[in-house]
Amino acid sequence: MSESKRIRDFGIVIGKMKPGKMNCLTDVPGVKVAHVTVSDGPVQTGVTAIMPRADNVYRHKVMGAVDVINGFGKSIGLMQVEELGTIETPILLTNTLSVGLAADALVEYMLQENPEIGTVTGTVNPLVCECNDGYLNDIRGRHVTRVHVLEAIERAKSAASCDPGETGAAIQPEAVSEGSVGAGAGMSCYHLKGGIGTASRIMEVSESIQEGEKNPSSSAFTLGVLVLTNFGKRRDLIIDGKKIGPEVTSLEKMDRQALMQDAPEKGSVIIVMGMNLPVSERQLKRIARRAVVGLVRTGSYLGTGSGDVVLAFSTANGTPHFDEAGFNTWQVLNEDKMDIPFRAAAEATEEAVLNSLAAAAYCQGRDGHYRVALKDYLERILPSLKH
Amino acid sequence: MSESKRIRDFGIVIGKMKPGKMNCLTDVPGVKVAHVTVSDGPVQTGVTAIMPRADNVYRHKVMGAVDVINGFGKSIGLMQVEELGTIETPILLTNTLSVGLAADALVEYMLQENPEIGTVTGTVNPLVCECNDGYLNDIRGRHVTRVHVLEAIERAKSAASCDPGETGAAIQPEAVSEGSVGAGAGMSCYHLKGGIGTASRIMEVSESIQEGEKNPSSSAFTLGVLVLTNFGKRRDLIIDGKKIGPEVTSLEKMDRQALMQDAPEKGSVIIVMGMNLPVSERQLKRIARRAVVGLVRTGSYLGTGSGDVVLAFSTANGTPHFDEAGFNTWQVLNEDKMDIPFRAAAEATEEAVLNSLAAAAYCQGRDGHYRVALKDYLERILPSLKH
Amino acid sequence: MSESKRIRDFGIVIGKMKPGKMNCLTDVPGVKVAHVTVSDGPVQTGVTAIMPRADNVYRHKVMGAVDVINGFGKSIGLMQVEELGTIETPILLTNTLSVGLAADALVEYMLQENPEIGTVTGTVNPLVCECNDGYLNDIRGRHVTRVHVLEAIERAKSAASCDPGETGAAIQPEAVSEGSVGAGAGMSCYHLKGGIGTASRIMEVSESIQEGEKNPSSSAFTLGVLVLTNFGKRRDLIIDGKKIGPEVTSLEKMDRQALMQDAPEKGSVIIVMGMNLPVSERQLKRIARRAVVGLVRTGSYLGTGSGDVVLAFSTANGTPHFDEAGFNTWQVLNEDKMDIPFRAAAEATEEAVLNSLAAAAYCQGRDGHYRVALKDYLERILPSLKH
Amino acid sequence: MSESKRIRDFGIVIGKMKPGKMNCLTDVPGVKVAHVTVSDGPVQTGVTAIMPRADNVYRHKVMGAVDVINGFGKSIGLMQVEELGTIETPILLTNTLSVGLAADALVEYMLQENPEIGTVTGTVNPLVCECNDGYLNDIRGRHVTRVHVLEAIERAKSAASCDPGETGAAIQPEAVSEGSVGAGAGMSCYHLKGGIGTASRIMEVSESIQEGEKNPSSSAFTLGVLVLTNFGKRRDLIIDGKKIGPEVTSLEKMDRQALMQDAPEKGSVIIVMGMNLPVSERQLKRIARRAVVGLVRTGSYLGTGSGDVVLAFSTANGTPHFDEAGFNTWQVLNEDKMDIPFRAAAEATEEAVLNSLAAAAYCQGRDGHYRVALKDYLERILPSLKH
Repeated sequence: MSESKRIRDFGIVIGKMKPGKMNCLTDVPGVKVAHVTVSDGPVQTGVTAIMPRADNVYRHKVMGAVDVINGFGKSIGLMQVEELGTIETPILLTNTLSVGLAADALVEYMLQENPEIGTVTGTVNPLVCECNDGYLNDIRGRHVTRVHVLEAIERAKSAASCDPGETGAAIQPEAVSEGSVGAGAGMSCYHLKGGIGTASRIMEVSESIQEGEKNPSSSAFTLGVLVLTNFGKRRDLIIDGKKIGPEVTSLEKMDRQALMQDAPEKGSVIIVMGMNLPVSERQLKRIARRAVVGLVRTGSYLGTGSGDVVLAFSTANGTPHFDEAGFNTWQVLNEDKMDIPFRAAAEATEEAVLNSLAAAAYCQGRDGHYRVALKDYLERILPSLKH
Repeated sequence: MSESKRIRDFGIVIGKMKPGKMNCLTDVPGVKVAHVTVSDGPVQTGVTAIMPRADNVYRHKVMGAVDVINGFGKSIGLMQVEELGTIETPILLTNTLSVGLAADALVEYMLQENPEIGTVTGTVNPLVCECNDGYLNDIRGRHVTRVHVLEAIERAKSAASCDPGETGAAIQPEAVSEGSVGAGAGMSCYHLKGGIGTASRIMEVSESIQEGEKNPSSSAFTLGVLVLTNFGKRRDLIIDGKKIGPEVTSLEKMDRQALMQDAPEKGSVIIVMGMNLPVSERQLKRIARRAVVGLVRTGSYLGTGSGDVVLAFSTANGTPHFDEAGFNTWQVLNEDKMDIPFRAAAEATEEAVLNSLAAAAYCQGRDGHYRVALKDYLERILPSLKH
Repeated sequence: MSESKRIRDFGIVIGKMKPGKMNCLTDVPGVKVAHVTVSDGPVQTGVTAIMPRADNVYRHKVMGAVDVINGFGKSIGLMQVEELGTIETPILLTNTLSVGLAADALVEYMLQENPEIGTVTGTVNPLVCECNDGYLNDIRGRHVTRVHVLEAIERAKSAASCDPGETGAAIQPEAVSEGSVGAGAGMSCYHLKGGIGTASRIMEVSESIQEGEKNPSSSAFTLGVLVLTNFGKRRDLIIDGKKIGPEVTSLEKMDRQALMQDAPEKGSVIIVMGMNLPVSERQLKRIARRAVVGLVRTGSYLGTGSGDVVLAFSTANGTPHFDEAGFNTWQVLNEDKMDIPFRAAAEATEEAVLNSLAAAAYCQGRDGHYRVALKDYLERILPSLKH
Repeated sequence: MSESKRIRDFGIVIGKMKPGKMNCLTDVPGVKVAHVTVSDGPVQTGVTAIMPRADNVYRHKVMGAVDVINGFGKSIGLMQVEELGTIETPILLTNTLSVGLAADALVEYMLQENPEIGTVTGTVNPLVCECNDGYLNDIRGRHVTRVHVLEAIERAKSAASCDPGETGAAIQPEAVSEGSVGAGAGMSCYHLKGGIGTASRIMEVSESIQEGEKNPSSSAFTLGVLVLTNFGKRRDLIIDGKKIGPEVTSLEKMDRQALMQDAPEKGSVIIVMGMNLPVSERQLKRIARRAVVGLVRTGSYLGTGSGDVVLAFSTANGTPHFDEAGFNTWQVLNEDKMDIPFRAAAEATEEAVLNSLAAAAYCQGRDGHYRVALKDYLERILPSLKH
């Protein structure tokens, strides 16, 4: 479990909804996350693996949807998620130039787990998303290896999840490490050190009042977000409404007697959003589209060079791979209640981005490039933030 | 009921699936269709109304989806169908320059039927699709009136449908008049007289074999298509695989000593597809997308000036307007069985286009413009078709 | 010209880019705007007409693009803009239940202006966007008439624009009235009185340094936005980063001894964005997509019931209707410079929304419904905003 | 150069437009194609590389667009083509489970060719499309290696193209080998041996008549298509309008005393479409969308399991990677002339699919699976086809 601080630890509370137990994507039952970090001087990169359900996701696919905020990116696998509405592999995050290798290793893993692929059944759709960590990382060196990828998947597979499973005994979910870990090792966000961040929200959905009942019953569902942040210009950074970017820059200049350049925005953000809310594919896509609200609240202008992609999944209404039934039964959220997951998506995304900044430590990478850490300035800017 | 002949009456059978009882869109339980034709010399236009279900569609919305094959068109209402996945009004077809008026009259009807609209609940999304009948019709005269529109809706409302309803006693569906009726009055297709055509297909969906059972049970569902045809160049016409356009042109020249000009393709086709198959919105959209197969099989090149739009609905998995439940229960087709509705959609669309041509009679409209009728050549081209 | 105050008059400056001369959509050369307001007790509605260029837009079409943020809306004409990338009529805004009538009147106007429509050339694609003013307005009464629509178009047509035209003498553009005017008469925004707002930004695009030159030359272009605001929940309102909604609510309660209900968000926002920047259709769509940044910065969560639509046009790279050339010549912005219009789009949208709130006066409409005006609280909340 | 026969060699002429000199994708100036075939018993796979222009495509990007007919596929790189409208690498085709490896090797090649990637400029978007050759090929064995991929790229790079280049001396383009070559080695189409096919069309675009001129001048452009065919059910096969599938099956049964099973359609088709026609990105996408016409004319029902993807590019209106100009100048086709490339796209796609069938030889692959060749039946079915 991460020991780094989170944005809430500074008294900054994003939005009005209650977070899940760990305030992590892993609050969604069955979801597991693990990282392999590859960090050594000019090499600052890695792999993050997300298991969208506790058991074999190829045989029990989860519902998936995509929202491409800005398609300047090199992810693989999104087209089929759009068409079929299902996710059938772990989701990997890594650096831009390692997507092919990661997809190749993920296929290797899938073939091993599922001997039926390519023989008695069809193929498999590996899902790999990416950001460009080339400012800090020697990305041309392509230091992510097949072993790193397989290790990340194995770690995620063996992680604990809060899926009660067949025994019915819920397990404490694992918190997700944040900041410069896994795929986040070399990422930059608002010209600060970025990387991995996560957050979650509880969604209460009230049922209708049945005859004779006094009060409507309600059920609680969880929406979690994990982001890989690598976007934004310093001057644009907003924390909980406060345009704090310039103040951070002033502090950095005092510390370093250096001129922080206002470089053009490069980079991207990947937003992985999981939930156990029963929805249709159309609804899931609508929910995914609200991640942009959280993103913009942290200061993004959706820059031309930033590949901003949302990949959402719901563990409700899954699809068995070998299925002979004519029809499956789904529960689908009443459309009038969609504002509940919309707000959860916005809030969790905003907080996850801020968590990625709060957790990441100062990093020096290739060619003398470095990124300072928001954490090193948070105490000093708190008076402005709390005003 | 129409007394005109249909393409099957000439021994031409499109595809391999069995049609519904009437081989009409109205084979789908609950669906009703009616026309108001406005035909008088240079005035050749009208309105067609489709009720997607037997009772109040605002309070019990049907699932809807759209596929825009070529968006050169002026329909109203499609955007919301895409976003919400529901249809909440009758569907109207008319000429391009009467869309606004038709939408206005449809709103008037909806307000009258549903006093809650605009007071205690929101608004209403009128659905009107169109083709340009301006070659035969004095379209600038805008001869469709509010009374025509309301009359078409009332006729459709009071038509019989094969929805068994609460009594459980199925009623014989009404056949749909084809050719130069309703919105089809002034339409041209492959430089012949076009207009309204319809067809349907029965879809058998097998259930899985339960333990102890010998045979899988299967259920039958119906997919129906109604087209408003106003597209294509004569030379491109294909009937059941045979490129018959040039032969029709030769015959016309013999008859008329006139040179049929190879004018650029103008026009459009509207394809309304209904079904009672339980699907998700994503699946419904995928099915709608297969209408293009039937369209292309009749000779279309999807010309730049042709607004080709598919509007699909399923009466399964409907959505009540006033709903306090947290969740609704849906049945959703096993994705492995999607080729069944795909083929039904393609076959019914191809046959519906041909039916529109087979039914329409010679028509002379404005400024001496005329369209000859395929029906007047069908007997003579049959030897070529049957070869 | 409006005498109402604007958000800048209170010292609140949105963003870093310079506004155009009038800080209005009409700063874009050739663009003209006019309103017809229908306001009388329970009737609070109207029409706003936007001429995207000074002369006949049917014969000289402007480039158009659409971004549907949330498609819960009833606009007409967007599909063809998407397919063909052109706008060929004035753009009208009105209430939801008057879209059909407005489209019908717009067609009437277009037929009169262009005798070739429906005879020697094709048809016309009327563009009408809408919001639901039914909270204040007796929307069921449908009080917008054909005369109102034609009057709005005529007023816009005869307005002055800053298009230098053939004489080369630039004319002072007309400022756009804001707040409860035209289509904005009955609109609500953040549970305050909303309506029409506008703003603009100057975009400096540097050219490359030519050999022998010392400094790159640069050209200035204008991007303007006009919004029709009818969305949002009070508690979410943000002004220039400050979450000011709850404070406004407190002040209202003091004034009125009334409990402002936290009703669910209904409504919509229409964002019309014009520019004279030379771009391709793909680029124009990308720019349109950045309006969401400005929208979210004012507090929107993109609520399920809010039809949020962006309609963008560029007056550069137009398309003549009667054109025999094989090819047209376009200038297309260097993609590396896209962040310039992106920021202009975001800033102008944010400011236009705030201007709609700053200008609108308290309004009482149907059934005792009323909306208080932000303008009546702005002086009192200024200390919080400027902190 | 291929010595296999093509569909035209049997007197079957698809459509009315004239093909280019070689009737290949390589008729488009600058375009080059090469294959590496990996064929050995149960191993039947390979790589096909397409260079969209003669020189460095990263530094001089071509315009690109995508049409996803059915997104059940695992291609990489399409999202960015959609967003930015450019292609910046060779296009690779291979088997489904080798996409990651091929993308990885393509990145390796790009890094070597362009030392600026990942250091002074951004990253690179590798384009790899795929079909599933797992029926004939031991796809689980993943027999495509990095060396195969790099070899295919090198062969394509050093191929001759008909780009006159700077010297102005046009070179004879190389014909493209078809059938079971490159990525086509193990592919099946209509349950026959499929693979690579290609065709092209000449497009005459007339210019307007200038004052004093007698005749409009016209310019000739080329559109070429290359397909990787791996879709369809035998019974559906259509050749030039004739539903010939069942006859082929009868002949096969006579030959083999074996029952050809009517297996469900699996597979896909990749359609790469190149042209030198000056268009906008919107127009290019519209042209790409017409490939479906040619596809359907050969019998496809766009089966659920078939990932049908069109990747189009135009070598006109390219984009330099290092560009300091504020604006670029484009030529853009008059929209009224779009039916010319639409028909070229449809015809070339239909003929390319048939060429893939005409060229491919009988193949036995893994586990005794085999596909018979259309070429072995073409002489015998000719009487039916020519009727």
